[in-house]
Amino acid sequence: MSIRSRKDTDKVPEPTLRRLPWYLSNVKLMKEKGEHYVSSTQISKEINIDSSQIAKDLSYVNISGRTRVGYDVDELINVLESFLGFTNMHKAFLFGAGSLGQALLGDSGLNHFGLEIVAAFDVNPDLIGKEINHIPIFHIHSFEEKIKEYEAVNIGVLTVPINIAQKVTDEMVAGGIKAVWNFTPFRIRVPENIVVQNTSLYAHLAVMFNRLNFNQIK
Amino acid sequence: MSIRSRKDTDKVPEPTLRRLPWYLSNVKLMKEKGEHYVSSTQISKEINIDSSQIAKDLSYVNISGRTRVGYDVDELINVLESFLGFTNMHKAFLFGAGSLGQALLGDSGLNHFGLEIVAAFDVNPDLIGKEINHIPIFHIHSFEEKIKEYEAVNIGVLTVPINIAQKVTDEMVAGGIKAVWNFTPFRIRVPENIVVQNTSLYAHLAVMFNRLNFNQIK
Repeated sequence: MSIRSRKDTDKVPEPTLRRLPWYLSNVKLMKEKGEHYVSSTQISKEINIDSSQIAKDLSYVNISGRTRVGYDVDELINVLESFLGFTNMHKAFLFGAGSLGQALLGDSGLNHFGLEIVAAFDVNPDLIGKEINHIPIFHIHSFEEKIKEYEAVNIGVLTVPINIAQKVTDEMVAGGIKAVWNFTPFRIRVPENIVVQNTSLYAHLAVMFNRLNFNQIK
Repeated sequence: MSIRSRKDTDKVPEPTLRRLPWYLSNVKLMKEKGEHYVSSTQISKEINIDSSQIAKDLSYVNISGRTRVGYDVDELINVLESFLGFTNMHKAFLFGAGSLGQALLGDSGLNHFGLEIVAAFDVNPDLIGKEINHIPIFHIHSFEEKIKEYEAVNIGVLTVPINIAQKVTDEMVAGGIKAVWNFTPFRIRVPENIVVQNTSLYAHLAVMFNRLNFNQIK
């Protein structure tokens, strides 16, 4: 087993996983500026995170810096992109082609970060049979048939109304989905071996509105 | 000063603000099911959060439950929506009408949660002068003119490429934007009085891919 594989089996802390894309985007900018090497101190200055924290975060990734020179920029970009899963295409189904669902179907940017939505499901007869951004929309009833037809789909993007969020999640899991990217403001329940990533735009809005209001009246 | 206003000046912890929308969506479902009262214990059972935590979170909101009966469902929904800022329309400009930017312009769902994007800015001549979902796209150079023309815009949605994320942020702040909803994977720097809410879809993807991979090889 290679060092790379051993590293993969360590459970990387979520805060580290959330910071690594910051380092990646920063290092990409340095490459654009013509830099060949970058140190954690340099990254630290740019993004205002302690350099020892950066070094610690990068220790989860299989790359070693050279004393007084730092990390090779190209290597660091490649290793980070691969480690974060952005270079591997992960196939996903989307459930609920309403306003937010259609927005995500239209966002080809997700492809650059390793997510390919290959089909969507809904119950609205006006949508079924249509395509958005070349992604077909099927009736939810054909999900079990389609997960066999499309190969290796193990991610479900959840953008349904809250009153059916749990029901659709249960169907996804029963059909073989292993990870749910939950955009609903509903806290779904899943078996222990199923990954859930909550991305509630509305919760983020709530935080932003509250802080804005706080700044205005303090 | 009313009790409501006093409550608003307390700095509500971010985890609380992120949980409140879960309670809101849950209570909405209970209303659909015909319930008139709900207790923190009932919410607790539904979403698997300790009921004392729920009661503590709800103490930031100006509502009081009745012993052995709980909270009035309609009142709780109204108070939560208002507290979270979803009933007040907040005007925003969007910067960067690329793939993700266009997706957000197309998502009318944001309106139901208090965010109205009134205009977008870009530099792409193919986009300038066009409308997406009835939202006009202007050249970034007209931002200072437009922030005077449109009234009370104090939120900026940032969906530009990372290499100009800081520059555009600086321009937004100089022009009078008070809160930045940052969708880029870049860690922007702002003056202390400016609110930043980071919503990095790519960081969430990274976490999901990592956990999925971890489950598959463990």
